[in-house]
Amino acid sequence: MAGSTYGNILQITTWGESHGAALGVVVDGCPAGLALDRDDIQLYLNRRKPGQSRISTPRKEADEVEILSGVFEGRTTGTPVSMMIRNTSQHSADYSEIASYYRPGHADYTFDAKYGFRDYRGGGRSSGRETAGRVAGGAVAAKILHEMGIELIAYTKSIGPVSIDPSKFDKDAILTTPTCMPDTDASARAEAYLADCMRSCDSAGGVVECIVRGVPAGLGDPVFEKLDANLAKAVMSIGAVKAVEIGDGVGAAVSRGSENNDAFCMIDGAVTKATNHSGGTLGGISDGSDIILRAHIKPTPSIYSPQKTVNKQGEDIEISVKGRHDPVIVPRAVVVVEAMTALTIADALLMNATAKMDNLKKIYG
Amino acid sequence: MAGSTYGNILQITTWGESHGAALGVVVDGCPAGLALDRDDIQLYLNRRKPGQSRISTPRKEADEVEILSGVFEGRTTGTPVSMMIRNTSQHSADYSEIASYYRPGHADYTFDAKYGFRDYRGGGRSSGRETAGRVAGGAVAAKILHEMGIELIAYTKSIGPVSIDPSKFDKDAILTTPTCMPDTDASARAEAYLADCMRSCDSAGGVVECIVRGVPAGLGDPVFEKLDANLAKAVMSIGAVKAVEIGDGVGAAVSRGSENNDAFCMIDGAVTKATNHSGGTLGGISDGSDIILRAHIKPTPSIYSPQKTVNKQGEDIEISVKGRHDPVIVPRAVVVVEAMTALTIADALLMNATAKMDNLKKIYG
Amino acid sequence: MAGSTYGNILQITTWGESHGAALGVVVDGCPAGLALDRDDIQLYLNRRKPGQSRISTPRKEADEVEILSGVFEGRTTGTPVSMMIRNTSQHSADYSEIASYYRPGHADYTFDAKYGFRDYRGGGRSSGRETAGRVAGGAVAAKILHEMGIELIAYTKSIGPVSIDPSKFDKDAILTTPTCMPDTDASARAEAYLADCMRSCDSAGGVVECIVRGVPAGLGDPVFEKLDANLAKAVMSIGAVKAVEIGDGVGAAVSRGSENNDAFCMIDGAVTKATNHSGGTLGGISDGSDIILRAHIKPTPSIYSPQKTVNKQGEDIEISVKGRHDPVIVPRAVVVVEAMTALTIADALLMNATAKMDNLKKIYG
Amino acid sequence: MAGSTYGNILQITTWGESHGAALGVVVDGCPAGLALDRDDIQLYLNRRKPGQSRISTPRKEADEVEILSGVFEGRTTGTPVSMMIRNTSQHSADYSEIASYYRPGHADYTFDAKYGFRDYRGGGRSSGRETAGRVAGGAVAAKILHEMGIELIAYTKSIGPVSIDPSKFDKDAILTTPTCMPDTDASARAEAYLADCMRSCDSAGGVVECIVRGVPAGLGDPVFEKLDANLAKAVMSIGAVKAVEIGDGVGAAVSRGSENNDAFCMIDGAVTKATNHSGGTLGGISDGSDIILRAHIKPTPSIYSPQKTVNKQGEDIEISVKGRHDPVIVPRAVVVVEAMTALTIADALLMNATAKMDNLKKIYG
Repeated sequence: MAGSTYGNILQITTWGESHGAALGVVVDGCPAGLALDRDDIQLYLNRRKPGQSRISTPRKEADEVEILSGVFEGRTTGTPVSMMIRNTSQHSADYSEIASYYRPGHADYTFDAKYGFRDYRGGGRSSGRETAGRVAGGAVAAKILHEMGIELIAYTKSIGPVSIDPSKFDKDAILTTPTCMPDTDASARAEAYLADCMRSCDSAGGVVECIVRGVPAGLGDPVFEKLDANLAKAVMSIGAVKAVEIGDGVGAAVSRGSENNDAFCMIDGAVTKATNHSGGTLGGISDGSDIILRAHIKPTPSIYSPQKTVNKQGEDIEISVKGRHDPVIVPRAVVVVEAMTALTIADALLMNATAKMDNLKKIYG
Repeated sequence: MAGSTYGNILQITTWGESHGAALGVVVDGCPAGLALDRDDIQLYLNRRKPGQSRISTPRKEADEVEILSGVFEGRTTGTPVSMMIRNTSQHSADYSEIASYYRPGHADYTFDAKYGFRDYRGGGRSSGRETAGRVAGGAVAAKILHEMGIELIAYTKSIGPVSIDPSKFDKDAILTTPTCMPDTDASARAEAYLADCMRSCDSAGGVVECIVRGVPAGLGDPVFEKLDANLAKAVMSIGAVKAVEIGDGVGAAVSRGSENNDAFCMIDGAVTKATNHSGGTLGGISDGSDIILRAHIKPTPSIYSPQKTVNKQGEDIEISVKGRHDPVIVPRAVVVVEAMTALTIADALLMNATAKMDNLKKIYG
Repeated sequence: MAGSTYGNILQITTWGESHGAALGVVVDGCPAGLALDRDDIQLYLNRRKPGQSRISTPRKEADEVEILSGVFEGRTTGTPVSMMIRNTSQHSADYSEIASYYRPGHADYTFDAKYGFRDYRGGGRSSGRETAGRVAGGAVAAKILHEMGIELIAYTKSIGPVSIDPSKFDKDAILTTPTCMPDTDASARAEAYLADCMRSCDSAGGVVECIVRGVPAGLGDPVFEKLDANLAKAVMSIGAVKAVEIGDGVGAAVSRGSENNDAFCMIDGAVTKATNHSGGTLGGISDGSDIILRAHIKPTPSIYSPQKTVNKQGEDIEISVKGRHDPVIVPRAVVVVEAMTALTIADALLMNATAKMDNLKKIYG
Repeated sequence: MAGSTYGNILQITTWGESHGAALGVVVDGCPAGLALDRDDIQLYLNRRKPGQSRISTPRKEADEVEILSGVFEGRTTGTPVSMMIRNTSQHSADYSEIASYYRPGHADYTFDAKYGFRDYRGGGRSSGRETAGRVAGGAVAAKILHEMGIELIAYTKSIGPVSIDPSKFDKDAILTTPTCMPDTDASARAEAYLADCMRSCDSAGGVVECIVRGVPAGLGDPVFEKLDANLAKAVMSIGAVKAVEIGDGVGAAVSRGSENNDAFCMIDGAVTKATNHSGGTLGGISDGSDIILRAHIKPTPSIYSPQKTVNKQGEDIEISVKGRHDPVIVPRAVVVVEAMTALTIADALLMNATAKMDNLKKIYG
C-alpha cells in the first residue's frame, strides 16, 4: 500500500530524492532464471538521461546503475533485485531560494500541505529524477516480456502543435531524433517550435504513444484490475501527465457503435480483429491485438518568464524561475511511459498465471 | 490484490453477475460512528437504475438494496458493511445465442481466452450491472466525504457531438433530464441525436465530468499513489471508458507553460490558485482547488445493425444483436463515475491521516 | 489491507455479526474451472455447527449456505464466489445486559476502546460465528488442494490435561466423537473432564493439530511470506488461539541441533527427509514432508461462576455470565483451523506459480 | 504482496544476500517530521552484529549503515527512507562445497525446489544476515513508538534447559551478557551449557521474550488483522522460529477459564486488568496491558558433527559442515524479535488512526 511501491506480483519500490545521496529501486517478484545483466538496465536508463541535446537540460548526470542483489551467475534468483544510482551532479545552492516560496505548476505547496515541510532541493521526491528507479525497474519487466515474445515501442507523437505523420513512421528515428519522434521531418519542426518557446521564455507539452506487440489474449481482469485501468494509473502516475487514452480514446466518445466496434474474423485459423479501435483490450482483458495508449503531458512548469505566486509568509510575490530546465518534458518521458507500461503488462502476465485450474495442472503436473 | 477489491484503507469488494442470484459489495475500513441508513444507499442506486426513460433499456430492475452487516443503531461499527441486491429481472433465455459467438466490442472473446469458458448470460461479470456494487460502496464514501465538508457533482458533459453550454449550467437538471445533462437545451438536442442513432440501429458515446469541492490540500501521494493516478484507475476501471482527463487534460499537452501554470495568490488569508488548469492536483497531491476529471465513454457495443464476427467453432459469421440495450451508456455511467471518484477521494483522506507525526499526536494525545 | 480480507491471490473477505441479518464471505481469485457445488461448502460448515452434542451450546443454527455468484454450470468462473448464511437463531434480548459492562476474556472493552462503541449482541463481529465465513472460504481452498492431490486433516489433540494417544489414532473418530478427537478413549476421558468443568461453572482449553499431506516442495517464500509465518498468522487470527507451533515447535527450542536436524535421504529416487522435526518447512518453504501445526486455544471466557469486572460507568462490579456457552471451544475450532490452513496452503500454491521463468513458459508456451 | 515487503502503512522492503554487494531496506510510510539520524539505526544494528563474544561467530562485519534518502535536516520527510549496509566480510570460497549438496536444517533443498537454482554463498537470501534490513527498519518503528510513549524490551528467556529467574530480572544485563539474558547467573549457566554443546560439535536453541509497554487500548483488528496474529507472523517470519506464544500461550490451553480470564478493575480512574494472562490483547485488539510474546528458536542447523544428506546428483552422502557458525542463534535474534515487534505495533498504531470518524475530525478539524 505504501506510496512508493507499484505492482502486484512483479513489484517495484522506488526511493530517493533529486539531491539526496542516491536513488534506487527494489524489484521484487521477478521470476527466477531470467538472464539479466547491468547492460540491460543501463541501456534503458541512458534513454532518460539529460544533457543529450540542446532541447534537454545541460546538466550532466552519469546515471550509472549498480545491481546490488538478486542476480547470481547472470540470472535472477527470484529474490529482490536492488539497484542504485548515485547522485553526482547536485548543486543544492541553485535551489535554496525555492525554499521560501511556491513555484506555480510544481508540488512545493502541496508537499508542505501534506507533510508540514519539504526537501526543497530540486523538487526532492517530486523531481523528474524519481523516474530513474521506474526505468531501471521497467528494464527488468521489458526483459521478462521479451522472453515471452512481447515487445514495446514508445515515442513522441506530438510536441505542442507538431504531430508525427504516421505514413512517415521510422522506428530508428526514435533513438536518434532529439525529440524521440519516429519522423525526422516532424522532429525538425518540433525543434523549431521549441526554439520559439525558449526564445519567449516559455515551455511546451506533448503526447507520448506506446504500443505493445505480442500480448496474448486473456491478460487483465474484468473489474477493478482491468488491464487498461492499471495502464491508466501507471501512466498517470508519471509526473506532468494530465490525460491517458486507450485505443481511440477521446475519439471513441464521438464515434458511433458501428464505427467503434471491431469486427472479429478468422485469419490463419486464429480469432483476430479486423480493426483495433479498442486499443487491444475488451472488458479490461487483452484481446490479442496491439495494446495502444497515449499520455498527454503538460508543458514544463519551470519557465523563465516572471510569474505570480505566494511565499511561505503568505505574501503575494513575483518570481523568475532560475536553474537549468528542459523546455519540454516529453522526449525524456518516452522511456518512462514505456517502463511503466512494461511493468504493468508483465505484472498482468504473472497475475494471469493462476486464472484457471488448467494452468495449475500445467505447472504442478 | 484480488481483482474485485478496490481501495487501500476504505476498501470495497464487489461480486455478482448480471444473471446470478444477486449482486453485492462489502465495504471494509469505513470508520466507526458514521450515520448510515438504507436510504443513503438506495437514493444513490436509484440514479443508475435502468428503465427510467426512453433512452434507457426498458428492463425494470428493482435494485432494492439490503444492508446485511456493519451498521448498528444507525451508525457504522467499523466492521464490514455488506450490501446485497437481488437480481429479479433475468431472462436468461434471451442470451442463450450469445454463448456460441463473440459479440464485437464485448468481453465475450477475452473472457473465454482468460478463463477457458464464461457465464454468457447478459455478459456475466462484465455486465454493466456489476457497477451496482460500486455505486452502493460509493454511497458510503460520499457520506464520509459529506461529513468532512466535501461534495461531489457528476454529470453528462456531452453525448456524441452535443456538448453542454457551461454558461447554462443548471445543477438541478442533472437529476431531471434523461441524459443527466445540467443544461436542458443541450439535453434536448442530445435526445434528438440519440433518436437518430436508434433509427439507424446504431449507438452513441459521450463524456462524463465529475467535480469535487472542498477537498483539503495535501491528499494524495508523490509517486505511484498520486491522487490523479488513482482517479485515472478508478474511472478507467468502469467498463466502456476509453480515456481519462484531469483538469485541462488533453488540452494541457498543446498549451504553453505560461498558459498552463496556475498562479498562487492570497485570498482571505489563504493560499489559493488564480486559475485551475491543473484540475486540483499538483505533483499527485490535492492543491485545495476543485478536483476536475472527465471520462470518455465509447458507444454501446450492442447495436441492432448486422455485424461480422466469428463463432466458437472458428467460423466467420454475421450476427444481429438482440435484446434490450441502451443506445448510450453515458447517463447511467454518471453516478458510477461519481461513486468511483468518491471512493478514491475518501480513501486518500484516510490514507493521509498518518502523513505526519503531528496527526498522530492529535489522535493519541 | 482491510482487516476482513485474508490471502494474496486466493483472497477471502468475510463479513457479518453474530446477531445481524446474515454472515458471509466473498472468495476472490479462485481459478476458473474448479468443480464446486453447495454441498462442498455445506459439509464443511456442518462440522462447525453448534448444537451437536452435550459439550456444545444447545443453540440450533441452521447455517444453510447460499452460493450467490461465481459458479456457473457447476464450475467456478474465475470471478468472486459470494456465499451467505442467514442468521436464524438470534435472541438479542439475552445480550442486552452485556451492553453495560465488560466481560473478562472478551473483546467488549477493546472494541469500545477502538471504535467508540460496539454491537454488543452476542459479541458482534468478535463472536465465534464470524468463523462461518472462514470455513465456507476454506471449503473452496480445500477443494482446490484436493484437485492438486493435497489433503488436510485436523483434530483435537488435547482438552485440558487429556491428550490423545498417537498409537490409537483413528481418523474416523474425528467426525464421530463429540470432542473431534481421533481416539475414542481419550475422547471419553475429555468428556468426563468437561463434565467436571461444567459442574464447577468453569471451562477448558485445548490443542488442535492440523496435518497437510501431499504439499509439493517449493511453496512459500524466504523472508516475510514464509509459509510457516503465514500459517502462524492464519491460525493466530482465530479467536482464542494463544500459541502456534510448527513441527516440533516449543520442543525445538530445548533440543540440540543433532536431534532437531532432519537428515535428507533418497527414497524411491526422490529427495526425502528421514524425520520431520521441521514440520514440513525449511527456510519458510515447504520441503515435501507433511506440514504439521498446532493451535493452543484458551478456555471459553464465558463462565457461569461470578467474576469481577467494571461497567461502562467506571464502577467495579461482579457479574455472572448468562446465556448458552460451550464449556470448550476446541472441537468447533478444529474445522476453522483446517479452513485457515487450507486457505494459506492454496494461496501459497497460487503464489508459487510465478516463481520461475520455466513456469511461465509452461503456461504461455 | 511481494515476499520481501512487510507492513501495511509502515512498510519495509528488505533486499540483499549474505554474500552479495550489500543488504538494505526501504522504509515507506513513515510519518513526516520524525527526528531520525544514523545513530538511531546504528545502535540497533550493533545489537545483532556477530563477533562480539565467544558464543558468536568470529566473523567481523562492520555493518555500517548509510541512510540514502527520506531524511532532510534531521527529520523524516514522509518519503521512503532507504538504508544500505555494504557487505565487507564475504569469503565465498568457504561455501563453494555447499553448492553440491543439501545441508540438513537449511533452506538449500527448498530453494532449489522453488527457484530451480540458488545463490549458495552463505545461504544467500536465507542467511541470518537478511535480518539486518529488518533491524534497520525496526529502529525507525521503535523511534516512532518512543515518540508516542511506547517502549519495547526483548531478551533471552532461555537457552536449552537454562531459563532466567524472573525474580533476578536485571534489565541492564540484556546488553552486557553474551547471552542477552537479564540475569547474570542464568547467563553464566547458559554459557556453560553452550560450551558443552560446542565440545560435542552440537548446537542449542532457546526462547526470546519481548514486552511492549505503553500500548494504548484499541490497536489491532477483530478478524484477520488481529494484533496477535500479525505479531505471530512477524515473529514466525524470522528464520529458525518454530513457535510463537502470546501471554500465557501454551499454558492457556491447559488452564481453566476461571484462571485464564483477567478481571477488569478501576485503578486511578482507568479501566485496568488485575492480571495479564492474555498478554495484552483481547479479541485481537490491544487491551492497554503490556504486550507479551515469546519466540521459540530451534538450534543452529550448522553443526560440526557428521550428518547424512543427499547431493544434487541424488546420492546419499555424509557431510561435515565447515565455516564459522554460532552454537546458538538466540542472542542475536533478540533484537530481530524486538524489531519485528516494533514494526508490527507501529503499523497497528498507524492503521488505527482511521478507526473512527472522531479521529478524522481531530485531524481535519
